[in-house]
Amino acid sequence: MLTLYYSRGSSALAAHILLIEVGAAFDTVEVSIAGGRHRTPEFTALNPKGRIPALGTPEGILTENPAILEYIAATHPHAGLIPGSPYDQARARSLCAYICATVHVAFAHGKRADRWADDPAARDAMRTKVRENLLDCADLLERHLLEGPWALGPRFGYCDPYLFLVGRWMKAHDLTLASFPRMEAHSRLMLERPATKTAMQAHLPG
Amino acid sequence: MLTLYYSRGSSALAAHILLIEVGAAFDTVEVSIAGGRHRTPEFTALNPKGRIPALGTPEGILTENPAILEYIAATHPHAGLIPGSPYDQARARSLCAYICATVHVAFAHGKRADRWADDPAARDAMRTKVRENLLDCADLLERHLLEGPWALGPRFGYCDPYLFLVGRWMKAHDLTLASFPRMEAHSRLMLERPATKTAMQAHLPG
Repeated sequence: MLTLYYSRGSSALAAHILLIEVGAAFDTVEVSIAGGRHRTPEFTALNPKGRIPALGTPEGILTENPAILEYIAATHPHAGLIPGSPYDQARARSLCAYICATVHVAFAHGKRADRWADDPAARDAMRTKVRENLLDCADLLERHLLEGPWALGPRFGYCDPYLFLVGRWMKAHDLTLASFPRMEAHSRLMLERPATKTAMQAHLPG
Repeated sequence: MLTLYYSRGSSALAAHILLIEVGAAFDTVEVSIAGGRHRTPEFTALNPKGRIPALGTPEGILTENPAILEYIAATHPHAGLIPGSPYDQARARSLCAYICATVHVAFAHGKRADRWADDPAARDAMRTKVRENLLDCADLLERHLLEGPWALGPRFGYCDPYLFLVGRWMKAHDLTLASFPRMEAHSRLMLERPATKTAMQAHLPG
């Protein structure tokens, strides 16, 4: 049994979709970031980073989206969501690392600018640049990283629910994927999947 | 044959160490960030991100440290640098994701603050907070993530050259590992390895 610690509207949506996709036996525990529940002693004893998502496994807790997503795929091999060759596996990891360390970080400079500067004016300056950075990321994804129709080509894989978050991060900053046809088509395909619909229900504002 | 595109003093040092550790057949191409060579049309045609490191493989170019490091380990299995179980593999990926998306990002707010704000005062405010954030990262690594003596326990693995960078990033901000005995011991062990010594020679200021 796996346990997904999630907050509504957070990046935990990707792991949530993937758990449903692979037919995993899992339950969920809501840890509301808006309610500050990720900072409680109970949660930080479990995950000292105080971040969401975290995945409880029989062997211990896992954090960081790239690791969680590949673990879900690797422990449910029948779903066939991991590429076969070392090079294609590395491409998948490279895409996840880019989303984690560049796209998600670009997005985080909006709501979480306090991580990187104490001065309120500096935080405002960071927020001002978020849209430009997200557009640059979408452009790079569109032109170079997204193979189409799925992230790495003809087959749905464990990166796809993570790539799906990019459009949601953009939407949170009043941006659309309209100028990025491959990204937009990917997002539409994701929205058609039953697993996406089910997971999104659980992430609606409570 | 592999080709490591590197810049002296950059995070490419980790892949450089690992390539030597596994006895890979590789050559190197210097792409000086200080000299702006990562922004030339020649390099961005190869790596549209314009970032270092990049690894040329027989199947194409790879970017992002977590993907490059695990690829080197996976394609040189005799070196035994990848853990055996899905959970331990996920722990390795989680550590790499944390270094990539939190520690490296914290460090980048020093020299590369222009990525996240245009206002010079905001960039100064970000630089001011880099030391505090790096100390927080070292503390988390020391208390929760570094098993010791190596990153994931008794055996040297592909994460170790990456973890080694943390001390170097701190040093660049006049911080030491003195308050973090496990991190400091790890750094000492890394410095004793012939592969580290050889790679560091190639990264001395030219």
